[in-house]
Amino acid sequence: MSLNPKTAQQTVSITTEIVLPNDTNTLGNLMGGRLLHWMDICAAVSAHRHCGRVVVTASVNNVSFNQPIKLGEIVTLQAKVSRAFTSSMEVFIDVWVENNQTGEKIKCNEAIYTFVAVDQVGNPIAVPQLIPETEEEQKRFDGALRRKQLALILAGKMNPHDATELKALFLIKKE
Amino acid sequence: MSLNPKTAQQTVSITTEIVLPNDTNTLGNLMGGRLLHWMDICAAVSAHRHCGRVVVTASVNNVSFNQPIKLGEIVTLQAKVSRAFTSSMEVFIDVWVENNQTGEKIKCNEAIYTFVAVDQVGNPIAVPQLIPETEEEQKRFDGALRRKQLALILAGKMNPHDATELKALFLIKKE
Amino acid sequence: MSLNPKTAQQTVSITTEIVLPNDTNTLGNLMGGRLLHWMDICAAVSAHRHCGRVVVTASVNNVSFNQPIKLGEIVTLQAKVSRAFTSSMEVFIDVWVENNQTGEKIKCNEAIYTFVAVDQVGNPIAVPQLIPETEEEQKRFDGALRRKQLALILAGKMNPHDATELKALFLIKKE
Amino acid sequence: MSLNPKTAQQTVSITTEIVLPNDTNTLGNLMGGRLLHWMDICAAVSAHRHCGRVVVTASVNNVSFNQPIKLGEIVTLQAKVSRAFTSSMEVFIDVWVENNQTGEKIKCNEAIYTFVAVDQVGNPIAVPQLIPETEEEQKRFDGALRRKQLALILAGKMNPHDATELKALFLIKKE
Amino acid sequence: MSLNPKTAQQTVSITTEIVLPNDTNTLGNLMGGRLLHWMDICAAVSAHRHCGRVVVTASVNNVSFNQPIKLGEIVTLQAKVSRAFTSSMEVFIDVWVENNQTGEKIKCNEAIYTFVAVDQVGNPIAVPQLIPETEEEQKRFDGALRRKQLALILAGKMNPHDATELKALFLIKKE
Amino acid sequence: MSLNPKTAQQTVSITTEIVLPNDTNTLGNLMGGRLLHWMDICAAVSAHRHCGRVVVTASVNNVSFNQPIKLGEIVTLQAKVSRAFTSSMEVFIDVWVENNQTGEKIKCNEAIYTFVAVDQVGNPIAVPQLIPETEEEQKRFDGALRRKQLALILAGKMNPHDATELKALFLIKKE
Repeated sequence: MSLNPKTAQQTVSITTEIVLPNDTNTLGNLMGGRLLHWMDICAAVSAHRHCGRVVVTASVNNVSFNQPIKLGEIVTLQAKVSRAFTSSMEVFIDVWVENNQTGEKIKCNEAIYTFVAVDQVGNPIAVPQLIPETEEEQKRFDGALRRKQLALILAGKMNPHDATELKALFLIKKE
Repeated sequence: MSLNPKTAQQTVSITTEIVLPNDTNTLGNLMGGRLLHWMDICAAVSAHRHCGRVVVTASVNNVSFNQPIKLGEIVTLQAKVSRAFTSSMEVFIDVWVENNQTGEKIKCNEAIYTFVAVDQVGNPIAVPQLIPETEEEQKRFDGALRRKQLALILAGKMNPHDATELKALFLIKKE
Repeated sequence: MSLNPKTAQQTVSITTEIVLPNDTNTLGNLMGGRLLHWMDICAAVSAHRHCGRVVVTASVNNVSFNQPIKLGEIVTLQAKVSRAFTSSMEVFIDVWVENNQTGEKIKCNEAIYTFVAVDQVGNPIAVPQLIPETEEEQKRFDGALRRKQLALILAGKMNPHDATELKALFLIKKE
Repeated sequence: MSLNPKTAQQTVSITTEIVLPNDTNTLGNLMGGRLLHWMDICAAVSAHRHCGRVVVTASVNNVSFNQPIKLGEIVTLQAKVSRAFTSSMEVFIDVWVENNQTGEKIKCNEAIYTFVAVDQVGNPIAVPQLIPETEEEQKRFDGALRRKQLALILAGKMNPHDATELKALFLIKKE
Repeated sequence: MSLNPKTAQQTVSITTEIVLPNDTNTLGNLMGGRLLHWMDICAAVSAHRHCGRVVVTASVNNVSFNQPIKLGEIVTLQAKVSRAFTSSMEVFIDVWVENNQTGEKIKCNEAIYTFVAVDQVGNPIAVPQLIPETEEEQKRFDGALRRKQLALILAGKMNPHDATELKALFLIKKE
Repeated sequence: MSLNPKTAQQTVSITTEIVLPNDTNTLGNLMGGRLLHWMDICAAVSAHRHCGRVVVTASVNNVSFNQPIKLGEIVTLQAKVSRAFTSSMEVFIDVWVENNQTGEKIKCNEAIYTFVAVDQVGNPIAVPQLIPETEEEQKRFDGALRRKQLALILAGKMNPHDATELKALFLIKKE
């Protein structure tokens, strides 16, 4: 598969799930672990569509569960690559739940997964660049670098002073 | 259930899984989504042991997948509450994989889940304080506040300047 | 929920699955029964989006499996209501499989499911009309009546002579 | 395995399932997709017993769901080959549900699946002839040809005028 | 449901399973735990058919696994009540595996499960007597009392000297 | 892996499960078959930790279900090898359920599984000796021989008169 850049739109993956009894806790709400699993598969398909390679989950961050999702509700997940680095891809997953009566879709979750493309023996391999087009795609593309820096700092692999963009976040109002 | 403080040790939850075919990707390695699901359940048991209430996943962060886990390998997860806030609890999950030949256990994952204790209609409810005892428990207890501040800033709910401890991380070498 | 007519486009439901080991037969190909299950859920979401009611599968027809789908391949299902009758809805499901290397999507299955909308005690209830817009939607809308007549004849509930459109199929070249 | 003809009785496959929570919709009734999956496996065993080969689902037709099956009910499926063609086999599946109190078995579903026998690389391979013995077996054996013609016509692979038996269905009362 | 005695034949429950990838260990053979689960459900249906009540597993004994069952093989389980006591029923489960080439069925397992019939709050409730008819049914009926005595002795609830039939087993050749 | 003896403590395997809807019967209690499956996997891990080999379930005995375990309850299983023979290992599994309110753990099940260590073609292979340390470990170690003799007698592979220890059980009060 070529390394020609792809647009974010070309990497979209959509999936639809109905919350079944085994997916719920004793309050009858969707368990976080099940949603994490669904998001991982949906995001992996998106990353795979970007690079055409086997992809493995490298990290998960910023998953917040804002409101309970109930038994029998329809959940829609959309994953889209937000930025590609050398061999890794950051993927945003947006989750909506539909009101059973009105059909209205309410955004209820957002998560960021990172995947690495690997060859058949599991070694990292180069991936195409990602081209953001919409305003939101551009915003997520820009933020991806900041999040990568933060991850490196927290892992002790980068000096906070080299994380230019991130540092600004804490200094900007100081002046 | 009383609100008497508990030690971190009292909240330990252990689980053991064998990686089965349906848990693996096409390279024969454990898929990230399956491990996220296992970690969620193990961590939920730990949070439940701390507060004796129904707990719901509030957020997931800092999950990194360092090395592939293979089909047939034995995976051990240990979850332990690292700090309790008003109605939320931060839980660390450590994951080891056993070498099939030598039985040696290798640390392969670490993750941080946050849970909220809720009553029967889903409203947040107070939880007991957590008492760290070992050096590692104390270190994770201290870090929990910093992570909470970071989450609030990223969610736009806290001014970076009020995140005293976190700010120090970026300023400390400036002087 | 109102009985205002809906366009076929408003009823679209999309889902994406990766073929896992337990979904396959001993040749490593997707088992028909698993795909039938996936199609049922995807089609039920589509019918639900049309009528906003609990829907139950009434019949399945015309499912043909043209080519094997392999372990690890990505399968995309799209369901869309083709016609609404008094309380029943005919749903078409189209299935594509993606080539892992090129990303090219190949149509591999087509099926027709019929659902009935029911109230909370399981009695049939009226559904909105369906408005076809594209040429293909119109063609499937027209065919739905013919298929309904055929089903009634085969079930012994309609005299073949009253199935005007269907009869024409067999008589047309006679003249 | 030889190509000696087999009786329909020799191909019988029976399976018994209890409807568990995850098999049900929000009305507490068995979902159609789950039953389709059970029927596929039961029918595949029947086809396999007829030909001793790997069999793959080729088509599904005439599945009607007459009455809801409830959570906890016992469902019995019986599959039996109705006719064998060159490399394909038509299989009838009859489904009964047991009344929990009286133990009475009520017929609630009927479906027709077609399977193709394949060799280890997936190519069609000849199967033995099927010998009907009872009156019902003979009736289903005769109908199989009519159904095959109908499928070929609907797929545009046969001229309706060549479907002698089927045409009679529409012409018989004309005279 | 009446307490009229039933024949062993009236309690037969049959189920057929195909060994799927997730049912197997790293040697590609059926895992014992999966078979234990299948046997429990098949035996519960048999006990339910005898008494028409909710039944709960009370004990499991004498399960031996004589030969490996391989991935893709067809497994047939037959359960039959061997004897009914006041509120409990002993059920024999026989398991066969079919040779994929010849279709020959080979007996590969045997197990004895005991179930108790309970009312809606979980209290034990009387069950009908069981009438053995064949020679094998009679033999298993007779052995059931001996096994019940052995279980009571091992649980410390019966004096070995009162277990007349069992004692004979050890004394008979002494004379 | 060496054949150096191991202590019972070195073979401990712990797992924690939450009872989900699909694990329960119509009374909302954990089904026996699901627990048997969980026990098999937990015990297999324990046997594997003892011998470092692939292990296959050889027999199951003495499983009694003393009290119902309810939906949503937390179940903890602990498995420990009780005695090693030439190539087989007897494993005890103890099961506790936690009271959701008080957190108190109540012992609710006990079972004995036997595993055989096999090489890559499935042939039995020697395992290390097991060293009991605590009083309970010693008691279970001693009982293992008696249970093995009983199994051999029941299988018709040992003359009751040669089962010295077992015979004593029935004769001891005779004198």
